[in-house]
Amino acid sequence: MRTVSFRTVVKNYKAVFFDAFGVLKNHQGLINGIENTFNYLESKGIPYYVLTNDSSRSPDELAKWYQKRGLKCITTDKILSSGMLAMEFFKTKLENGKAVAYLGTKASAHYLETAGQKTVPISEVDLNDLDHIKSFAFLDDEGFDWNKDIDKTINLLRHKNMTVIVANTDINYPVNKNDISVAIGGLADLVEQILGKTFIRFGKPDAQMFLLAYERALKDVPDIKRNEILMVGDTLFTDIIGGNKFGLDTVLVLSGNTLPDMASVRIGSSGIIPTYVCESAVIQ
Amino acid sequence: MRTVSFRTVVKNYKAVFFDAFGVLKNHQGLINGIENTFNYLESKGIPYYVLTNDSSRSPDELAKWYQKRGLKCITTDKILSSGMLAMEFFKTKLENGKAVAYLGTKASAHYLETAGQKTVPISEVDLNDLDHIKSFAFLDDEGFDWNKDIDKTINLLRHKNMTVIVANTDINYPVNKNDISVAIGGLADLVEQILGKTFIRFGKPDAQMFLLAYERALKDVPDIKRNEILMVGDTLFTDIIGGNKFGLDTVLVLSGNTLPDMASVRIGSSGIIPTYVCESAVIQ
Amino acid sequence: MRTVSFRTVVKNYKAVFFDAFGVLKNHQGLINGIENTFNYLESKGIPYYVLTNDSSRSPDELAKWYQKRGLKCITTDKILSSGMLAMEFFKTKLENGKAVAYLGTKASAHYLETAGQKTVPISEVDLNDLDHIKSFAFLDDEGFDWNKDIDKTINLLRHKNMTVIVANTDINYPVNKNDISVAIGGLADLVEQILGKTFIRFGKPDAQMFLLAYERALKDVPDIKRNEILMVGDTLFTDIIGGNKFGLDTVLVLSGNTLPDMASVRIGSSGIIPTYVCESAVIQ
Amino acid sequence: MRTVSFRTVVKNYKAVFFDAFGVLKNHQGLINGIENTFNYLESKGIPYYVLTNDSSRSPDELAKWYQKRGLKCITTDKILSSGMLAMEFFKTKLENGKAVAYLGTKASAHYLETAGQKTVPISEVDLNDLDHIKSFAFLDDEGFDWNKDIDKTINLLRHKNMTVIVANTDINYPVNKNDISVAIGGLADLVEQILGKTFIRFGKPDAQMFLLAYERALKDVPDIKRNEILMVGDTLFTDIIGGNKFGLDTVLVLSGNTLPDMASVRIGSSGIIPTYVCESAVIQ
Repeated sequence: MRTVSFRTVVKNYKAVFFDAFGVLKNHQGLINGIENTFNYLESKGIPYYVLTNDSSRSPDELAKWYQKRGLKCITTDKILSSGMLAMEFFKTKLENGKAVAYLGTKASAHYLETAGQKTVPISEVDLNDLDHIKSFAFLDDEGFDWNKDIDKTINLLRHKNMTVIVANTDINYPVNKNDISVAIGGLADLVEQILGKTFIRFGKPDAQMFLLAYERALKDVPDIKRNEILMVGDTLFTDIIGGNKFGLDTVLVLSGNTLPDMASVRIGSSGIIPTYVCESAVIQ
Repeated sequence: MRTVSFRTVVKNYKAVFFDAFGVLKNHQGLINGIENTFNYLESKGIPYYVLTNDSSRSPDELAKWYQKRGLKCITTDKILSSGMLAMEFFKTKLENGKAVAYLGTKASAHYLETAGQKTVPISEVDLNDLDHIKSFAFLDDEGFDWNKDIDKTINLLRHKNMTVIVANTDINYPVNKNDISVAIGGLADLVEQILGKTFIRFGKPDAQMFLLAYERALKDVPDIKRNEILMVGDTLFTDIIGGNKFGLDTVLVLSGNTLPDMASVRIGSSGIIPTYVCESAVIQ
Repeated sequence: MRTVSFRTVVKNYKAVFFDAFGVLKNHQGLINGIENTFNYLESKGIPYYVLTNDSSRSPDELAKWYQKRGLKCITTDKILSSGMLAMEFFKTKLENGKAVAYLGTKASAHYLETAGQKTVPISEVDLNDLDHIKSFAFLDDEGFDWNKDIDKTINLLRHKNMTVIVANTDINYPVNKNDISVAIGGLADLVEQILGKTFIRFGKPDAQMFLLAYERALKDVPDIKRNEILMVGDTLFTDIIGGNKFGLDTVLVLSGNTLPDMASVRIGSSGIIPTYVCESAVIQ
Repeated sequence: MRTVSFRTVVKNYKAVFFDAFGVLKNHQGLINGIENTFNYLESKGIPYYVLTNDSSRSPDELAKWYQKRGLKCITTDKILSSGMLAMEFFKTKLENGKAVAYLGTKASAHYLETAGQKTVPISEVDLNDLDHIKSFAFLDDEGFDWNKDIDKTINLLRHKNMTVIVANTDINYPVNKNDISVAIGGLADLVEQILGKTFIRFGKPDAQMFLLAYERALKDVPDIKRNEILMVGDTLFTDIIGGNKFGLDTVLVLSGNTLPDMASVRIGSSGIIPTYVCESAVIQ
């Protein structure tokens, strides 16, 4: 796989969208040297944003993670998460006294509460008294008892027909160098298959995620065109195909999900072709 | 299924998005009385748009179809088709001397040509000389020899890795009261499955189709909010789930794909819940 | 849906295969009056067998369940379970000192142990020492910690490539009149999707389940032809399509999964057509 | 990928099942030197059989192909085709005056006619007079007009609910060194998806195909055990997983579908593990 230097690519764009995991960080923390990239972008006046399929924590908390590790420039307003799409979705759907039931941690319910919703974890739902439950959200794979609460979710959705949203399309995520974990999107797939229903999903590669970031970029760079934006990601099936379809130029970096020795095979077999391939998003 | 009158619903919105087939027209022509609906919307100053997964003909030709049948108000600028998304996609992707190969009629290639692209029907591609072919588009189910040209498409995409777009997500369409026909989206599914590749698809329920219409509406009604727009459709899996997800209010009409006696079962089993259900979009 | 009496149907066959849940029993116990059916079959000398996608308990234990409730005639040799196919599979695959890891209860491991295998529950596997693990079996949805052991299974199968079997193809099962639970087949689907691997599955509608029962029937009725056997089931997608494909005649009974008011719609929409439809397998 | 010699493997078995394409023949004819393998098997008295997902021609015609090219030992009784399973299926399903409609060549209808069925190609079906049509068979990808007859099949199956069988599970097949063609199984997938129905499919990796061959082998080697039979194939997803599941030992050969440089990656990513890997089935 012939790669090009990230510096020679990025300098031609008016804004940059970064995927988080595998691009800016990995299981050990920040990717070595990534602060140089942000120094460079700041020096050139190129704005940047982080697009993440993470609905487990608020944008504030996500930004703090970077700041604690020295990347002060990643402020809350730079973060675009799939949880924010869930929040947008619920903003106008207030109904007196009715609540959204959810699978996830208390922290992940933040998005719903910011949208003005009452929330109730599935463990506290009474299946015999569903009048005040109006919809359901899959938010995070932690914060509940899988042995009990997945079945309880299935039966809730069998007893009462309601709108269901999934705030993260990923089916798994890395937990350390060797291991992965089922993500909430994977559990949502299982429930959807068993019920034969169709849920509303938010997150890359879906266009709404890119639209959210594009509308943010328009505020910083009025009249920016889509093909003046560079999407940087490590995953063909989310970052790259989603960016391509939305009309962005795309860089596949080999510092995460797609390993250097398999990149060429994967691009060939998937038919998902990035505009560029770079070793990483680090600028030396 | 309890239905409400379309008039009582539509009067509360600042703009209306209509699906075409099953809502405004059927296999016999315009739906009886639908002109009243447009007279009403004109009288109230509510703008309207037609969102169609039709990439076989240009917006001009699509508009003419309505005008010939007396609906003079459906002008080209009211039409938003999935073919236009394909056109947008290709607009910035000009490469000297390189062409887009396609499956479809000469008329369907209009979208690519408007985007400045050279085009070549698959029948005229020489599989031994692919240097000047850069990408492929599935446009229409007519205009080619299925016995030969589907296999030829498969082998073209095996011989050269290229970006592939599908300009219509539908897998079939009605041809008369009783019969349906395979749509180009269905053929694209077949080719995708055989190749194991992932194509870029345009059309409802994808957010980009709704975004295209929303951006058009913003020009007529500055600052219009998504939940001030009503999406009217006959199909749960395209019009309604797509509208719901994009934040629109939705009406399922029972004049097309979803028959009155099955509406309630289908809403229950799919979990796709329209804001309203109306017999049709006709205002008496 | 026009139904016929089970007695008029069954008397024309030389052997009967019964599905268990929804046909012979439900969440409350034996189906009312089903003992008459077995009295009838005994009086006519028509042999019968129970085919079940149940790998959680041994044939002995499954038979005891019926005997305790008064159906003395359901002896161990009448039971054909998907767990027995797993057992057959492993019988010839002994490797010195190597063990089969599994998800399930200790009781479900019985099938592997009967096949001479050493077994180890996933919770006791050391991911850093996999030399003595040779294959993996999905056996039962109970007996482990879903929060931990599903992820551990995924990572085991990432670290070492091995043959994986699923001893029950069902994705859910009923737990009471209103509620269902995820079955081990559903969890196997989730793991398979995340890994992109293909597991070996045992159970209806797969032909091997019917073959197991057919070989048993041949011992009782030498030279019996497939179309002289009647398969009785409540589920189109397992009992009926599997029976049809294997060349058996089939009865759909409406005492379980397929409710009387939906039977006609389901047969029409699935294209899976039973030879007969009966209210239940009970003979008055 | 470490490979072993086919001779050292095959000598330990009491019977051999061969896949045809990629093992015994390719687009150019017989695989070079394959006659030595059959001389060897004959000299050792090891019986052999050819298992093929080919429903386009009768066993007689399939055998003649080998004989014309010098392999006299491949006689009709050595051939087990998926078409024969279709024939078995229809043997007992005679209904006075009723016919099976089909997609395929006249030659492919042989299997149905041998089963005593009246047949009618889809092109000759009158959609307004379906009383005498009782079922449908997907037989071959040739012999009909794809532009017309695929749609006609879809509408036939919409107008009348009937049992549908697919006599070949393959979705594509090679036509020369570089090119492939859609197989009838691929067209059946398309029709199934559009209709939302479930067809009955015959062919590897389904157990019924292996059962057919096993029953044939039992006649030649009474009491032969499944693990005394070697299945030789070039495709992990049909030959190898099907053979493994049925309890046979399996050889993956690298002379067809699975190329030497990808074998190790494919086995690792699919989790389908052959007992052995050999360069080819040729014995020098």
